[in-house]
Amino acid sequence: MERTVSLAVVPGDGIGPEVIAEALKVLRAATAGAVRLDTTTYPFGAGHYLGTGEVLTDADLASLSRHDAILLGAVGGDPRDPRLAGGIIERGLLLRLRFALDHYVNLRPTRLFPSVPSPLKAPGDVDFVVVREGTEGPYVGNGGTLRRGTPQEIANEVSVNTAFGVERVVRFAFRTAASRRGRLTLVHKTNVLTHAGGLWQRIVDEVAAEHPDVSVDYLHVDAATIFLVTDPARFDTIVTDNLFGDILTDLAAAIGGGIGLAASGNINPDGAFPSMFEPVHGSAPDIAGRNLADPTAAILSTALLLDFLGLPEERDRVNAAVAADLESRGSAARSTTEVGDAIAELAHR
Amino acid sequence: MERTVSLAVVPGDGIGPEVIAEALKVLRAATAGAVRLDTTTYPFGAGHYLGTGEVLTDADLASLSRHDAILLGAVGGDPRDPRLAGGIIERGLLLRLRFALDHYVNLRPTRLFPSVPSPLKAPGDVDFVVVREGTEGPYVGNGGTLRRGTPQEIANEVSVNTAFGVERVVRFAFRTAASRRGRLTLVHKTNVLTHAGGLWQRIVDEVAAEHPDVSVDYLHVDAATIFLVTDPARFDTIVTDNLFGDILTDLAAAIGGGIGLAASGNINPDGAFPSMFEPVHGSAPDIAGRNLADPTAAILSTALLLDFLGLPEERDRVNAAVAADLESRGSAARSTTEVGDAIAELAHR
Ligand SMILES: CC(C)[C@H](C(=O)O)[C@@H](O)C(=O)O
Ligand SMILES: CC(C)[C@H](C(=O)O)[C@@H](O)C(=O)O
Repeated sequence: MERTVSLAVVPGDGIGPEVIAEALKVLRAATAGAVRLDTTTYPFGAGHYLGTGEVLTDADLASLSRHDAILLGAVGGDPRDPRLAGGIIERGLLLRLRFALDHYVNLRPTRLFPSVPSPLKAPGDVDFVVVREGTEGPYVGNGGTLRRGTPQEIANEVSVNTAFGVERVVRFAFRTAASRRGRLTLVHKTNVLTHAGGLWQRIVDEVAAEHPDVSVDYLHVDAATIFLVTDPARFDTIVTDNLFGDILTDLAAAIGGGIGLAASGNINPDGAFPSMFEPVHGSAPDIAGRNLADPTAAILSTALLLDFLGLPEERDRVNAAVAADLESRGSAARSTTEVGDAIAELAHR
Repeated sequence: MERTVSLAVVPGDGIGPEVIAEALKVLRAATAGAVRLDTTTYPFGAGHYLGTGEVLTDADLASLSRHDAILLGAVGGDPRDPRLAGGIIERGLLLRLRFALDHYVNLRPTRLFPSVPSPLKAPGDVDFVVVREGTEGPYVGNGGTLRRGTPQEIANEVSVNTAFGVERVVRFAFRTAASRRGRLTLVHKTNVLTHAGGLWQRIVDEVAAEHPDVSVDYLHVDAATIFLVTDPARFDTIVTDNLFGDILTDLAAAIGGGIGLAASGNINPDGAFPSMFEPVHGSAPDIAGRNLADPTAAILSTALLLDFLGLPEERDRVNAAVAADLESRGSAARSTTEVGDAIAELAHR
């Protein structure tokens, strides 16, 4: 019996459409016969904004919300384009979706596949996941500027953290750790950000009492970056705030073989809104349109999507296909479509 | 003619006193005959606080201020000690000094000495300096908690950034870059922290116009962590805010051979207050009192101190002695005093 999944697809800008085409190819192959994939493609991104003057209307948002999930490529135009200054696309589209669709879990696994070169000399067995909070912290947009452009200018940014918001993501992280190797590391900066850090620490302590199956430790964010390069194998599950999670997951992607392999899920675990899956990388305008981008991160994001949809067999098929493809990758460069074709063939049911 | 330098010494906790003893040994050796070193030792740190109930009184602060410079080891006790929770020593002592003595430049060089192993496979020629702002950002302590300990708790942290504060550190960074390889990288998160990021970007653009000798680029903090592990040799001078600087410099220390080699200066370039020099590492209670700690970071911090005091010859002597010692270090572990003795002998005038 085929199950129908309605998927909103936002290919976005730059290499976004290229990697999404391959991701969909693999998704179709891995689910053939088991899932009927109903896709609706949306044009949002920097290009759409420059053409229409709209980043994302309320109607657009409502339309996206009516799907089971969202697959996003990458959004953002030329960083030097003054019309896109101030993160208008990032905030108006990407962050707007994360906040409006209450993606309070930003899930970012790092796994160093055996055949993939790491920039580290001795990475060891790298396999961890960062549970990054997605709807609070310094991302809330509660900043302000006074006396802009004068020598008396003051620019503030407010990091907002609530017991409600922290507890739900911490609970998710404990469940994640329990389903893995049972080790959770809270990363924060409790010795300086005592208010936010105190809240995070207290909630982790509270939830820990309900989870004798999970061992918990704590690292300051600065120290965490050291361990990520000197002993990344020590990590299993990391839980952290929105900004620290942003920083740590780019570093994690680098040590895991590069941003071309880093997948992510913006998840609303309660199912109140569709979750959104996207590679961690950006739109890379410099290599766009040349069939050069590695679609693997987008493809691995479909594995997270399949997991979220409760299709573990199909998820495993995608992951295994990627692993097999990485294993057989030589040093010769392959095109975006070549990589997608190879993985799709391996993933086919 | 001997010049007199009056130095406040705060050995601190844990390995602090051990590494400071060696740093002073080297400082004396390198300046023998040229500088009369008048040192006053202060007991501040976690131990002092637990014994007296005082972290740092106003009188203590006034007394410290009367010196030409401060040399600090490391402060902080057992992180699990509830009496020290909430960063009471870090904030009450270390940050208090940085703020009260207006150390708006936190200077943290990273140089990978040829003989030192890096965790990176192919680090290249790593030689850069991070100019971290030291008196603003999320470190200002302007956070607050509402409904603490309830399910309705809200914990905020405010990052405060002023044109005054940003401009002075940016100007210092441009001068630093101009005296080095002429490349400055601003690191921030302008696409999310638009208020603070906008201020930083505008001031960098303004000062850049006065510095045709310096080429400027920009990286988001997340991307900066990637380049620090994939291509650290690309960096010359990085300028960034207090929190990003905290994170990046621990990562930088790791790729530069470890926190045992990372020196720093908390500098008031205007000379209104004494500057303070300290290794980046902490008090490491786990290895304290065993003559195991590497004093090199503390020793390299004295080179920054000598530079700041306008003693370039003596600074070079310390740096060269460290380089020579690192060159000849075998794989056999040496004690704290052995390393200090070796470097002091090499540094002797
Ligand atoms: C584009 C940007 C707003 C975004 C973020 O900071 O979250 C990106 O860096 C990411 O990690 O997905
Ligand atoms: C101890 C702590 C307050 C301090 C900081 O965050 O600045 C330390 O990490 C450093 O980098 O000197």
